[in-house]
Amino acid sequence: MNVTVRGKTQPYRTVTFDSQHNAVMLIEQRLLPHEFKVIATRTFRETADAIRDMIVRGAGAIGATAAYGLAQGARAFRGKDSKKFARHVEEIYATLKAARPTAVDPVNAMNDVLQAMRHGETVEEQQAIALAAAEEFANEDVRHCEAIGHHGAKLIRNGTKILTHCNAGWLAFVDVGSATAPMYAAQAAGKKFHVFCDETRPRSQGATLTAWELAQQKLSHEIIADSAAGHLMQRGEIDLVIVGSDRTLGRTGEVTNKIGTYTKAVLAKRHGIPFYVAIPLSTIDWKLKSGFDIPIEERHEDEVLGAWGIISNPQFNKGIPKSPQRTYIRVAHPASRARNPGFDVTPAELITGIITPAGIFRPAELWAKRTSLGFRRWT
Amino acid sequence: MNVTVRGKTQPYRTVTFDSQHNAVMLIEQRLLPHEFKVIATRTFRETADAIRDMIVRGAGAIGATAAYGLAQGARAFRGKDSKKFARHVEEIYATLKAARPTAVDPVNAMNDVLQAMRHGETVEEQQAIALAAAEEFANEDVRHCEAIGHHGAKLIRNGTKILTHCNAGWLAFVDVGSATAPMYAAQAAGKKFHVFCDETRPRSQGATLTAWELAQQKLSHEIIADSAAGHLMQRGEIDLVIVGSDRTLGRTGEVTNKIGTYTKAVLAKRHGIPFYVAIPLSTIDWKLKSGFDIPIEERHEDEVLGAWGIISNPQFNKGIPKSPQRTYIRVAHPASRARNPGFDVTPAELITGIITPAGIFRPAELWAKRTSLGFRRWT
Repeated sequence: MNVTVRGKTQPYRTVTFDSQHNAVMLIEQRLLPHEFKVIATRTFRETADAIRDMIVRGAGAIGATAAYGLAQGARAFRGKDSKKFARHVEEIYATLKAARPTAVDPVNAMNDVLQAMRHGETVEEQQAIALAAAEEFANEDVRHCEAIGHHGAKLIRNGTKILTHCNAGWLAFVDVGSATAPMYAAQAAGKKFHVFCDETRPRSQGATLTAWELAQQKLSHEIIADSAAGHLMQRGEIDLVIVGSDRTLGRTGEVTNKIGTYTKAVLAKRHGIPFYVAIPLSTIDWKLKSGFDIPIEERHEDEVLGAWGIISNPQFNKGIPKSPQRTYIRVAHPASRARNPGFDVTPAELITGIITPAGIFRPAELWAKRTSLGFRRWT
Repeated sequence: MNVTVRGKTQPYRTVTFDSQHNAVMLIEQRLLPHEFKVIATRTFRETADAIRDMIVRGAGAIGATAAYGLAQGARAFRGKDSKKFARHVEEIYATLKAARPTAVDPVNAMNDVLQAMRHGETVEEQQAIALAAAEEFANEDVRHCEAIGHHGAKLIRNGTKILTHCNAGWLAFVDVGSATAPMYAAQAAGKKFHVFCDETRPRSQGATLTAWELAQQKLSHEIIADSAAGHLMQRGEIDLVIVGSDRTLGRTGEVTNKIGTYTKAVLAKRHGIPFYVAIPLSTIDWKLKSGFDIPIEERHEDEVLGAWGIISNPQFNKGIPKSPQRTYIRVAHPASRARNPGFDVTPAELITGIITPAGIFRPAELWAKRTSLGFRRWT
């Protein structure tokens, strides 16, 4: 999508590959929204570090990064010994997988690449196929997000007030995004509407990433505290909720997403506001039988006990410093402790529809439609 | 309640009066939790500034501060001219009222003092009565909070996991607090339980004030992101919710409180978790007929767009710097905008009970019980 840097607007993808330098090119998301910077990882280990350190985050984006990382590692192999090469590829795979052990996308993406590589005989052939397969994974991610946008845009009318939570935007994918895809498609169709971005404590991805994305795209939006959505719904100021998902259970329609998603679904239900989840097919889990079996990551308490941002004098200094340096401040007393569950599970009964590249489905329909929803491919 | 400063534990009140220096003594709440400091305001204008600048905040605390401020201003009057004195008192009243124009407590508290002053004939008598009435207001606030604690403590058992939102603790009153009163009373009765404190963005009163209070009192507690309570309820980790209220409608049982309270009530209802609101009688509004008539203050967007804390290196530097200086950081992009409603309204149907100094009532009972709930006094 568009990014304006020093007055010049041009399209970017979150993840691309520089085949000449065998480098993965990533938007350094930890600097956003205060600085826009593209960095290069030169080895598969650097790429794994970038995933682990959350330079890149989001389902599709880390999937494509892992796919490119696998190709990058494979291409760095010198020699023609297929067995040594296979062991090398195994090591790359394990390293990239370990970077975000609970995420399913890097594994799915790398499995795609590995499967394609089987069609190559020589090391050289396999290296070339690996890159082509990674490119295809990235391009498919974009096509799927565009398809989500195509289907979801119908939900948005002129004047619709949308709530979204966390960042399921193009920064979380290769481009376009999932929850944002219907917004970008509706905008492209000339519709005028407004988006409320939950700030999404503790990591504030809504306040930082989603609001930044929407601003770059010149979409009308405001950030709200996570606690404010209930009040806005009560006063009729929200018409539609669209969120993303890290893992949706194909058997039950339950949706795992950033902590706080469940709360928004409960509120939407109470107020009769449609609640949609936009997902690429790769995030559907066809195996698990209950949302209670989904492990919920407990993250470091420092996220809750403080916040990251740039030092700035409120109401006086609205400008970005030339070299913004994100600072951690401690909000709570240093002796305070916190609980920090990273995700929650929203039951199917609270979800109006799941927006997929293949169309919009009720959560209970997913299993019946599994063949057209990639059941075979992603199982 | 207890505060430990440099290893020495002693009891404090949020607001006291130093009659020798005609000064209101206030805990400087904006420095908490990083520094504990008591400041003196020497004139009624300084006292009004302290209310306006939120050195002191919370229903009971600003009520007592305004009462003391009125006495302070009255006592500073030199002369015996009753008419001049009356005009002077009017000016004090208007100045203190204007410090927090939407708050009802300063007005109620000052009306108490004014009413008592009518029993004095000379200026000198009225000055003495003003201070005695302010002291009585403060003492009554403490007694009422203790009574809330007495009634509410029955709701807490060994092992109860309580959720609270914002700060309705002793820092919001003269002492003891409203939502915290049952906790302190249960603790005094030897019960062991755990409290989850919503951080309460955007001003983080839960993470800063409530967590600090509970730590001083050595009560088991953890801070959670505002978005996390739904997940914890889903997993059976919350048994009871107790919050405070800025304004409860006596006719309908609707409760106005810090933004996010409504959301917690909706979640509690869904999970069959009892939801209690602890209030002093002075915050019952017997006039308004609908929660939708309550004006909801829209606060400055910088609160949502950033955060206040002390600069600290997470995971490394847990100590408090010797002179902690709170810093504002900008979390969102400087060009981002925010909506910042400060309060929301929780309908009676979501509230299990209202804990008052006179006992626990269902919201619908308030009107029938109005005579014993201070209807005459506070109307």
